[in-house]
Amino acid sequence: MKVSIIGVTGYSGLELLRLLNNHPAVEIVSIHSHSQNGEAIDRRFPHLKQLIKLPLEEVNPEKIMAQADLVFFAAPSGVAKEQALPFIEKQFPVIDLSGDYRLKNPAHYEKWYGKTSAPISALHLATYGLADFDLPKDIKLIANPGCYATAAILSVAPLVRQKLIEKDSIIFDGKSGLSGAGKKLSEAAHYTEVNDNMSVYKLNQHQHIPEIIQQLQQWDKEIPAIQFSTALIPVTRGILMTTYCKAKTGVTSMDICEAFEAEYGSKPFIRLQEDQQFPCIKQVVGSNYCDIGTAYNKATQTITVVSVIDNLVKGAAGQAIQNLNLLMNLPETTGLELVPVYP
Amino acid sequence: MKVSIIGVTGYSGLELLRLLNNHPAVEIVSIHSHSQNGEAIDRRFPHLKQLIKLPLEEVNPEKIMAQADLVFFAAPSGVAKEQALPFIEKQFPVIDLSGDYRLKNPAHYEKWYGKTSAPISALHLATYGLADFDLPKDIKLIANPGCYATAAILSVAPLVRQKLIEKDSIIFDGKSGLSGAGKKLSEAAHYTEVNDNMSVYKLNQHQHIPEIIQQLQQWDKEIPAIQFSTALIPVTRGILMTTYCKAKTGVTSMDICEAFEAEYGSKPFIRLQEDQQFPCIKQVVGSNYCDIGTAYNKATQTITVVSVIDNLVKGAAGQAIQNLNLLMNLPETTGLELVPVYP
Amino acid sequence: MKVSIIGVTGYSGLELLRLLNNHPAVEIVSIHSHSQNGEAIDRRFPHLKQLIKLPLEEVNPEKIMAQADLVFFAAPSGVAKEQALPFIEKQFPVIDLSGDYRLKNPAHYEKWYGKTSAPISALHLATYGLADFDLPKDIKLIANPGCYATAAILSVAPLVRQKLIEKDSIIFDGKSGLSGAGKKLSEAAHYTEVNDNMSVYKLNQHQHIPEIIQQLQQWDKEIPAIQFSTALIPVTRGILMTTYCKAKTGVTSMDICEAFEAEYGSKPFIRLQEDQQFPCIKQVVGSNYCDIGTAYNKATQTITVVSVIDNLVKGAAGQAIQNLNLLMNLPETTGLELVPVYP
Amino acid sequence: MKVSIIGVTGYSGLELLRLLNNHPAVEIVSIHSHSQNGEAIDRRFPHLKQLIKLPLEEVNPEKIMAQADLVFFAAPSGVAKEQALPFIEKQFPVIDLSGDYRLKNPAHYEKWYGKTSAPISALHLATYGLADFDLPKDIKLIANPGCYATAAILSVAPLVRQKLIEKDSIIFDGKSGLSGAGKKLSEAAHYTEVNDNMSVYKLNQHQHIPEIIQQLQQWDKEIPAIQFSTALIPVTRGILMTTYCKAKTGVTSMDICEAFEAEYGSKPFIRLQEDQQFPCIKQVVGSNYCDIGTAYNKATQTITVVSVIDNLVKGAAGQAIQNLNLLMNLPETTGLELVPVYP
Repeated sequence: MKVSIIGVTGYSGLELLRLLNNHPAVEIVSIHSHSQNGEAIDRRFPHLKQLIKLPLEEVNPEKIMAQADLVFFAAPSGVAKEQALPFIEKQFPVIDLSGDYRLKNPAHYEKWYGKTSAPISALHLATYGLADFDLPKDIKLIANPGCYATAAILSVAPLVRQKLIEKDSIIFDGKSGLSGAGKKLSEAAHYTEVNDNMSVYKLNQHQHIPEIIQQLQQWDKEIPAIQFSTALIPVTRGILMTTYCKAKTGVTSMDICEAFEAEYGSKPFIRLQEDQQFPCIKQVVGSNYCDIGTAYNKATQTITVVSVIDNLVKGAAGQAIQNLNLLMNLPETTGLELVPVYP
Repeated sequence: MKVSIIGVTGYSGLELLRLLNNHPAVEIVSIHSHSQNGEAIDRRFPHLKQLIKLPLEEVNPEKIMAQADLVFFAAPSGVAKEQALPFIEKQFPVIDLSGDYRLKNPAHYEKWYGKTSAPISALHLATYGLADFDLPKDIKLIANPGCYATAAILSVAPLVRQKLIEKDSIIFDGKSGLSGAGKKLSEAAHYTEVNDNMSVYKLNQHQHIPEIIQQLQQWDKEIPAIQFSTALIPVTRGILMTTYCKAKTGVTSMDICEAFEAEYGSKPFIRLQEDQQFPCIKQVVGSNYCDIGTAYNKATQTITVVSVIDNLVKGAAGQAIQNLNLLMNLPETTGLELVPVYP
Repeated sequence: MKVSIIGVTGYSGLELLRLLNNHPAVEIVSIHSHSQNGEAIDRRFPHLKQLIKLPLEEVNPEKIMAQADLVFFAAPSGVAKEQALPFIEKQFPVIDLSGDYRLKNPAHYEKWYGKTSAPISALHLATYGLADFDLPKDIKLIANPGCYATAAILSVAPLVRQKLIEKDSIIFDGKSGLSGAGKKLSEAAHYTEVNDNMSVYKLNQHQHIPEIIQQLQQWDKEIPAIQFSTALIPVTRGILMTTYCKAKTGVTSMDICEAFEAEYGSKPFIRLQEDQQFPCIKQVVGSNYCDIGTAYNKATQTITVVSVIDNLVKGAAGQAIQNLNLLMNLPETTGLELVPVYP
Repeated sequence: MKVSIIGVTGYSGLELLRLLNNHPAVEIVSIHSHSQNGEAIDRRFPHLKQLIKLPLEEVNPEKIMAQADLVFFAAPSGVAKEQALPFIEKQFPVIDLSGDYRLKNPAHYEKWYGKTSAPISALHLATYGLADFDLPKDIKLIANPGCYATAAILSVAPLVRQKLIEKDSIIFDGKSGLSGAGKKLSEAAHYTEVNDNMSVYKLNQHQHIPEIIQQLQQWDKEIPAIQFSTALIPVTRGILMTTYCKAKTGVTSMDICEAFEAEYGSKPFIRLQEDQQFPCIKQVVGSNYCDIGTAYNKATQTITVVSVIDNLVKGAAGQAIQNLNLLMNLPETTGLELVPVYP
C-alpha cells in the first residue's frame, strides 16, 4: 500500500514518517511541503539521515493519485479544506489530521477557527475518525481527531455512553506538552518562557471544544456544554487530561469501573489502570496508547478520570495510522505495536 | 530582632536563610539541623559560601531562648509537635512551617498525617497564620499554612466569604513543582521519572485537605467537602492551582470581579490579573506574590480561578516572614519586596 | 532465537525489552531481577502493560541455559563478574552490559571500580564488543562498551587509527543525561538538583577511562593517557561528547574528513555530518545512531569532534543487540532500524 | 543616584530592573524601549506588577541627561554604537551591556559582528569593564563584558597573569542556558528543540572570542589564539565554562591553587572551591558570583578549570551594577548581596 504525505515538515508529518517507516504494509511514495524545493528531507531534518531519502515535492493531486493509494494531510488547519478537494471529488482516500473536516456544522468551524469552512458537500463525506470506536464501512475521508479531543473524549466516553453522570457537570482540565502547539515560532513557545513554568491559555476557547461536544452529543444528545481548560507544561510530548464530573445519584464506584471495563476491556490501545491508580505521561510517550485511571469520591459525588496520550501519536499520527489500518482492513495494531519510550 | 531556625537544611529552611539575609530588621543568630555536627553550613551548601557562616548546631531550647527572640521550625511534619513544646510552654514566639499545629482537631491530624498529634493544649495556643487575612493580636505560636493550602484558600476566599458559589461544588486541581516535596530521596523525585512527565498523586488524599476545609468553614460553616487533586509537574518551584466552582444562580461576572477586588485590592502580596487573564508560575517565582486570574463561563455556570505562588516563598518561608512581620508589628512587606526572578 | 535478560528492571534492561520487542528474530523467554518475586513486570512498569507479560524470576543458570540461546546481563557492575561464570564455563553466549568483563587487566578493574575483578580466565574469554568495528569470529562472551566510552572512542577512532593527531593531546569533554547514572536514588539525581543545572563530576576519575585507553592503545600503542571530563546535563537520554586534539603538523582539514569518511562511510550506525556541522542529542534519541561532526581550527591546530548517542541505545541496549546480530550472523541492523524520536 | 535604562524589555534590561529595585543608592527614573508607546511596563511583564510602574518611553538623549546621572544600554549589539554617541560626546556616564564598545580595533568588530563599528574616537573613550579587576579612574564609558567572555576570562586570568601555562594551549568549552541568546524568536530557541537536547553552535565563531583574546593579551601579549566552543543546554540561566590548558613544565598543583588564591582571595564576587571540587550552575543562579574550581592532571599536564556564572547577573546586569558601584565610588557589593536562588 502506497501513501503520500502532505505537510510532512510539521511535527505530525514527521511523526507519520517515524511510524510509517516501521509499518510492514505501507510504502511512502512521496512527501510534500508548502516550502518544497526538491531538497532531500534529511538535509533539513538530520535525524532522518539514511532513513528517509525522499525529496520534498510540491502538491500535485493528479500525480499523487497516480502514484499512491491514500494521502495524509498533516498540514495546519486551513490547508486541507482546499487542497483536499480534488482528492475528495475523485473519492481518493484521504486522512486529514487537521481540524478542517471534523465539524459537521460549518458555522462551528467558522466560529472556532475564525476561517471559512470547507464546502458542506465535502463535510458530509467526512467521518470523524475516533479510531477506538467503530467506524462506518466504505468511507474515503477521515477527519482525524484533535489531540486534546482524543484525550478528553476517551476519558468520559464510558460515563456518557452509559449515562452515569450529570449532564452539565463535565469539566476537562487539560495539560499539554509543547509539540502540541506545532513548530510555529511564538513567544509562548520560546524556551525561556516555557521552561520551569506552567500557563493556562484559551480557557473555554480552544478549537477542540466543538468536536468534543459534537462527539459526546452523538452518544447523549442532552449534554449541553462542557468546561474546558488548556495549559502548557514544560514537556515535549504528552497530554494529561484530568476530567471531573458528578455521578448520578445511586451510581457506585463499582458501576464506574464496570463501565470502563465494558467499553475498553477489549480495545488494544486503551489500557485501564487499577482503581485509584493514575497514569503518568511517560508511560505512553512514543506509543499509541491512551492509559486511563479513575476514582470516585463519595464525599463530593465526583468522579475523577485521568487519561494520558502522546499527542503526536495517539493524538495525531498514530491514530491516523490506526484509521488507515481500519480503512484498509488491516489488523488495527499493524505497525503500531510500539513499546513506550521510557524513561 | 534575633531569630533561630530549626530544620535549616531542608528547602524551606534554606529559603528562610535566603530571604532573611536581606531582611533589614532580622539577624539570624543560630541554625539547627537534625544531622548537625558543628559543620559550617556553607560547606554543605556551596551557594551560601561567604554569605552564611554559621555552624549547624543541635537543638537546645534553653540556649535558643537565651539568644533569640523567635524561632522558626522548618523541619518536616512530626518534629515540631514535640520539639516546639519547651518554647510554647514558655510562650516564646514560634513560627512552625510544618503541619503539626495547623489542625484544631487532633483526630484530623492523626487521620491525615498518620501520626499522633501535638498535645491539644498546644494546638489551642496555635493560630493558623494565613498572613493575608487578619491575625489575632498577642499570639505566640503561628502555624504557617501549607503550600497547596495557601494557593487553594486564596483562590476561593472571596467567593466563599461573599457566598457567591454552590457549597458542594469546589474542585481544586493543583500542580506543583518538585521542591514542594522536599529533599527526601524517592523514585517519584528522581530526575528521569519527573523530567518530561506529569503525574497525579494522592488524589483526594493530600494532607493539606483538612486545613483547607477548616479555613473555608471558618468563613462558611456549610462548606461540606472539597475535591482536591495534586500533581507533579517538571518544575523546581511553583504551584499553579486551577479552581472550579459553580456560581449561585444570579451571580454575574461582575459580581465575581468585584468580590476579588474588594477582598484583595489592598493586600500587598495578592495581585489580580484583568478579567480573563491568567497568571503563569514564572511571574511569581522567587517572590512572595500570589497572582490570581478569574473567568466565568455562563454556559456552564462555572467559575474558574487560577492562582500561582512560589511554594517555597508564599507557600513557606515568605509567608512565614510575613507572619513574623505581623507578629513584630513591622510593615507586612519588610524584607519581602522582591522582584520575581524572571525569566 | 531465544534470550533471557538478567537485571531487567534497570534502565538498560528495560531498554532491551523495548528494542527486542520489535526484533523479528528474537523471543524473550525469561526476565530476571535481583528483587524478583514472580510479580509480572508490567505491574511495576505500567508502560509495559499488554506488551510484556513475563514474570520477574530469580536467576537459575541451569534453567536459563535450558530455555534460552543467549543471556544478556543488564545488571550494575559487580553482578555479572560472579553470576555470569556458570554460563561462561559452559560456553553459553553471554552479552554483558556492565563493566565487569571490559578490562583485560584485573588490576585496572580493581583500581577504577574499587572491587575485586572477575577471574582472569573469564576475562581472557571476553571480547570488547565495539560493534561498529570488526569482532573476532566464534566468540561467546561479549563485554558491551560503556556509554561514555562508545561516544568517546567513536569520536577519535579515525584520527587514532590513521595517526593524524599528537598522541598526548586528546581531551574528552563528555556531557550525559541522567539515565546514564541509572535508577539508584541519590541527591545528585534528585529532580530539584538536576533541573536547570549542570555539574561536572568524577573529573579524570570516571571508570570508563581505562576501557577507552585500552581500546585506543589497540590501535596505537603510543597513546599515553587521556583527559576525561564528565558532566550531568538536565536531559533524560543522550550523551554529547566534545573531543579536542591537536593535529600533527601537515595534517589538513581534508585529511580529517577523508579519515572519517574512510572509516565510517559504510557503517550503518554512524552518520557523518557535513564539515563544520555538528549533531545535537535529539537527532539520535531512541535510535542506535552515533552522529559525528568535525572541524579543524588552523589557528590552534585543534581538531574538534562532536559525537552524540542515546546512552541507553547505542551506549547500552542497542549496541548489545547489534552485538547479538553479529554473534548470530544476522544483518547488523536487524531490529534496530529505528527512526529517532524527534522532537 | 538616578539612572535610565535603554533597551529595558530584553532579558538584561529586565534583570537590571530586578537588581536595581533593591539597590539602596539608585533610583530608576526612566525606562526606554525600541517598541515604546507609553505603555506601563507591568502590563507587558506581569511579574513587575506593583513593583515597576514606569512607562516605556522613546529615547530622547537630552531629556535623559537632564533627569538621570547615568544611562545603561541593554539593547542588542548595533544599537548603542549610534544611540550612545550623544551621551558620549557630552561625557555623560554610560554603561553599555552590548558588544559595541568592547573591541579596541574596529576591524575586529566588523569581522565578528558583521556590522560597521562605532566611531574609533568613541571606542578610545571606552573601558572594558571587567569589574573584578581594577578599572582606571575617571572613566565615563564602560563596555560591560559579554557573558561567555566573563566566565572564560575569569577562569584563566590567574594562570595567564602568572604565566603558568603554555600559550597556545587554551581551550574554552562553554555551555550556556537559553536566556543568553535573548528573547529573539528562532527555531534554535523553540522549546521542543531545546528541551532534552544539547547542541554545539558557532564553534570558533562566537563574537565573544575577540574580546577574550584582547583581554588575555593585555596580560600576556604572547597568547596567540584560543579554541572556543559554545553550546546550548536546556537551562534558563547560567553558563558553565570548562577550560583546559597545559601547565608549563615544573608547574605544580600547589602553584595553581596559590595563583587562584592570590588573584581572587580578596575579591568579593569570586568564590573558589576547594581543590578537585567543581561548582555547578545552581549555586550561583540569581547572584553576582563567579564560582571556580580547578584540578591538575599530572598524567596529561592538563589543568582543568570550571567556572560558573548566572549569565544575566555576573554575565550582564550584575556586573554592570558592579561597574556602576565602582564608577560612583560605592562599595563594590552595594545592592548585589544576593543569596543565590537555590534550589
